[in-house]
Amino acid sequence: VAIVLGDNRYGKAETHLLRVTRRDGVHEIRDLTVTTSLSGDFDAVHLRGDNSAVLPTDSQKNAVHALAAEAHVGEIEQFALRLARHLVAASPATRRARVQVDEQPWERIAADGRPHPHAFARTGRERRQAMAVVDGAPGREWAAAGLTGLELLKTTGSEFRGFLRDRLTTLKETDDRVMATAATARWRFSTLDVDWAQSFAAARRALVETFATLHSRSLQQTLYEMGRAVLEARREIAEVRLSLPNRHHLAVDLTPLGLASAGEVFHVADRPYGLIEGTVLREGAPEGPPLDW
Amino acid sequence: VAIVLGDNRYGKAETHLLRVTRRDGVHEIRDLTVTTSLSGDFDAVHLRGDNSAVLPTDSQKNAVHALAAEAHVGEIEQFALRLARHLVAASPATRRARVQVDEQPWERIAADGRPHPHAFARTGRERRQAMAVVDGAPGREWAAAGLTGLELLKTTGSEFRGFLRDRLTTLKETDDRVMATAATARWRFSTLDVDWAQSFAAARRALVETFATLHSRSLQQTLYEMGRAVLEARREIAEVRLSLPNRHHLAVDLTPLGLASAGEVFHVADRPYGLIEGTVLREGAPEGPPLDW
Amino acid sequence: VAIVLGDNRYGKAETHLLRVTRRDGVHEIRDLTVTTSLSGDFDAVHLRGDNSAVLPTDSQKNAVHALAAEAHVGEIEQFALRLARHLVAASPATRRARVQVDEQPWERIAADGRPHPHAFARTGRERRQAMAVVDGAPGREWAAAGLTGLELLKTTGSEFRGFLRDRLTTLKETDDRVMATAATARWRFSTLDVDWAQSFAAARRALVETFATLHSRSLQQTLYEMGRAVLEARREIAEVRLSLPNRHHLAVDLTPLGLASAGEVFHVADRPYGLIEGTVLREGAPEGPPLDW
Amino acid sequence: VAIVLGDNRYGKAETHLLRVTRRDGVHEIRDLTVTTSLSGDFDAVHLRGDNSAVLPTDSQKNAVHALAAEAHVGEIEQFALRLARHLVAASPATRRARVQVDEQPWERIAADGRPHPHAFARTGRERRQAMAVVDGAPGREWAAAGLTGLELLKTTGSEFRGFLRDRLTTLKETDDRVMATAATARWRFSTLDVDWAQSFAAARRALVETFATLHSRSLQQTLYEMGRAVLEARREIAEVRLSLPNRHHLAVDLTPLGLASAGEVFHVADRPYGLIEGTVLREGAPEGPPLDW
Repeated sequence: VAIVLGDNRYGKAETHLLRVTRRDGVHEIRDLTVTTSLSGDFDAVHLRGDNSAVLPTDSQKNAVHALAAEAHVGEIEQFALRLARHLVAASPATRRARVQVDEQPWERIAADGRPHPHAFARTGRERRQAMAVVDGAPGREWAAAGLTGLELLKTTGSEFRGFLRDRLTTLKETDDRVMATAATARWRFSTLDVDWAQSFAAARRALVETFATLHSRSLQQTLYEMGRAVLEARREIAEVRLSLPNRHHLAVDLTPLGLASAGEVFHVADRPYGLIEGTVLREGAPEGPPLDW
Repeated sequence: VAIVLGDNRYGKAETHLLRVTRRDGVHEIRDLTVTTSLSGDFDAVHLRGDNSAVLPTDSQKNAVHALAAEAHVGEIEQFALRLARHLVAASPATRRARVQVDEQPWERIAADGRPHPHAFARTGRERRQAMAVVDGAPGREWAAAGLTGLELLKTTGSEFRGFLRDRLTTLKETDDRVMATAATARWRFSTLDVDWAQSFAAARRALVETFATLHSRSLQQTLYEMGRAVLEARREIAEVRLSLPNRHHLAVDLTPLGLASAGEVFHVADRPYGLIEGTVLREGAPEGPPLDW
Repeated sequence: VAIVLGDNRYGKAETHLLRVTRRDGVHEIRDLTVTTSLSGDFDAVHLRGDNSAVLPTDSQKNAVHALAAEAHVGEIEQFALRLARHLVAASPATRRARVQVDEQPWERIAADGRPHPHAFARTGRERRQAMAVVDGAPGREWAAAGLTGLELLKTTGSEFRGFLRDRLTTLKETDDRVMATAATARWRFSTLDVDWAQSFAAARRALVETFATLHSRSLQQTLYEMGRAVLEARREIAEVRLSLPNRHHLAVDLTPLGLASAGEVFHVADRPYGLIEGTVLREGAPEGPPLDW
Repeated sequence: VAIVLGDNRYGKAETHLLRVTRRDGVHEIRDLTVTTSLSGDFDAVHLRGDNSAVLPTDSQKNAVHALAAEAHVGEIEQFALRLARHLVAASPATRRARVQVDEQPWERIAADGRPHPHAFARTGRERRQAMAVVDGAPGREWAAAGLTGLELLKTTGSEFRGFLRDRLTTLKETDDRVMATAATARWRFSTLDVDWAQSFAAARRALVETFATLHSRSLQQTLYEMGRAVLEARREIAEVRLSLPNRHHLAVDLTPLGLASAGEVFHVADRPYGLIEGTVLREGAPEGPPLDW
């Protein structure tokens, strides 16, 4: 039986750059980490070591730098799209390019009560993300946006009851628990005609506010409602994927220490953790790209 | 337009346990990290917060502990299969269970020239991995094995020439470079009637020896040949997936320091890095599981 | 020649807890990671395995939980002091207790334009820190405060010129560079009669504003001025220690790509990095604690 | 009251290099991470931004590369000493240089049953370490060696009983527990006339064998005996410092699962963990260097 090459892709991962824009003594910065990935007709290099179709990953890194320099960077969704188009054009064997851009946020330092023109402090642990997939064929371009590391916690308004019990179930039901997560969310657009900044802000707000305000019977319900809120907030979004680790906060039993256990001190556990993953989408949404997004 | 629930799954991630077996004063240990994941008919919990079909992730953790205690753990592929079958049986709404088991290796300490009966030192940075997917329907069980963190390096026998040049290409061709990677590999079995330990050892050896002995024209070629060697070594393996970061080792130019640059000192770069991913499979191989493996 | 026991200490590291305070339906949270360490007359346990003087690290963890539950937690400097006093009292062999408390910041989620009463989002990558050392003898108590992970960056207002050149120096002088760091700072108090919250806020502000506004000729100068600003801002602080990694941002040379190199795109390097460490103190400041702070 | 500069130092952290030596087609590799640090008369740069005495950290990195290229690298203790001497000589203001070298171990791949001449696999999670401190004055040179990340575990031969109980103590005594650690050890030499490789091997063996063979009443006792064994094995070592995290392995109570709890399944806890630190030294040992080692 013959042995054959299946799916494959290659690229440059985690090109980390700072883009500075100076205008009348006021500087703007963008802190970006970019990963590119190409797939297409690359049999020759795999089977025979023939590199003639291979655009080096070093050139892909150069492309990241050049596109960051050439034009206004814009929102990261646009930058990802531009870069993906460039890579498809630069490499004839490439059928599809996938680009992921992570943006690390900074804010202007306030000094003497005024925003400083060129000094910044890093804010937040969360990264904004954008992805673009560009296929050679016309009209086959996709964009997604998202975020990772969004840490959320609520101290009440969360229960977990009425679950299935098998012979190994020892968990007690609770009608009031701490619920905490570090969300990763990604949403896919059904169009590329989007006000990216406004869309991101609204989607993020929908996620955060739903987590806060929904009385949660389970993390699955919270996941679904978070996804639904994004879709209801923004028509241009076709589908939302969420990954919600359940960061267990276990009430410490203080009675052996001679104290009342009033649910005030919680052990924050590292591992194991629950992991809830799901997709919420618009019925009949246009299909997504052929590469993982 | 209606909003609907798409793909979803949930489980307990990274239950980390040590299993000790004692026999006549000689102890064996297994250091395992287990992640479970269930998917199936879970609309009620997502849409209405109705938990009646939900086997808690805490019970899944208990199942890991119970199965580790009950029986001889055996090879991790078997343990993953047993656990996946248990979870499907324990939870009627579950159509498919996916279990991943990572094994962290330890070796017996030699003291006074003899293997010590109950003292161990951790070896290696690499983790052996197994995955099982069990679908409720008869005959629908799959297993995969693999490893992650396999760091390999060769100081010659690697070139990169004749590649595509676009207007942004600045990379020089080289007929002799350091090539280094930290491989993640995963291979899927076409049968469950396997001598797992022997199979793993042979597959791992095929990966390592191919990396060492192949004169490499590109990391893609090395990837393909590593996968092919696994398939040629073991008939029970249908498909191999490899992810090979290219850990760039850049020759330091010593001439500005007044020294000959003889290719003896290399800067080990962290980021960015090349990332080469690909699949090698047997033509006509039976299809894999419906969940990512 | 005899072999003897030298300096030693033991304790419980990284007890991670969440403290919830509920008042009229509005919840406050504190997310703390606490490390305790005891030293004193512990020869018996080291030399003979006699544990009779050893307060278990498990009991130290219980003490963290109990003190977090019993009283208003207060500022972390106070909590560290209370805990250190408790540990000295609970363990006769202990001559000195050292406690470190890290606080991870959260802020209230705004939902429907209002601060939510019980839902929070994690902010910032920076951790506020406090340390207390309590010696059994009267008057021998010390406190320190600080922060770690304070990421700062300025896009101009930083030069590095006129440095020493040896035969291996290849660095070019620059009168305009990006300067970035992730500061760790710790300051020691000469008194315990302090408004801790106000003191911390003022010290942090002095660090950040000095980084922003000082025209820097070197990171050492910036370090000194940051320390000096803290001491000038707060009389109760005797000494400041700073550790400033120099996160190199290297201007990408775009001319090989056919573009003008206008200092707009920078490669953010991971390793190696410069590391500048120093102490700034008030002349004649009272001595610090006998344990590392 | 005047504000003054206290202790300070600066250098280049984590220069990561691979040194390749080729002889008759057989290659040797050394994978080193080097951190340098200078202290001395650096008031001018801190107080006035006058860099004229400052050897750039970039030049220190160049020195690492040049010394790695120039000579046989030798054992890392020697390399650290040579580099520290070079830095003191290259920088008049430097009174003391401190160099730390970490070595990441690789072993030759066996292919076709023979050691391969130029292909290697990374082994172990442990790093060998060396430190040198060189003071300008004659005879003031010190070396230390050590290791970090040495993971050890024993499944019996460890108890913890007869400890102090205060009102918050809930821990049960045990006469048989799993004991596990990830040791960091550092030992200081009383002479520089040492067979470094042999000394390291013997010291490491003393640590590992003592951990294995000592019946432990507490981790403190194990720490002391590990240090003592090093000193007894090697006359050239004056002092040993050990840091031993207690990686708690908690027996899972299986009785609620309907199983006998035979001490066979253990939960491996991440945090909190015990942390035991101590020094063992030869009475009257010559003093160590004025910088932290």
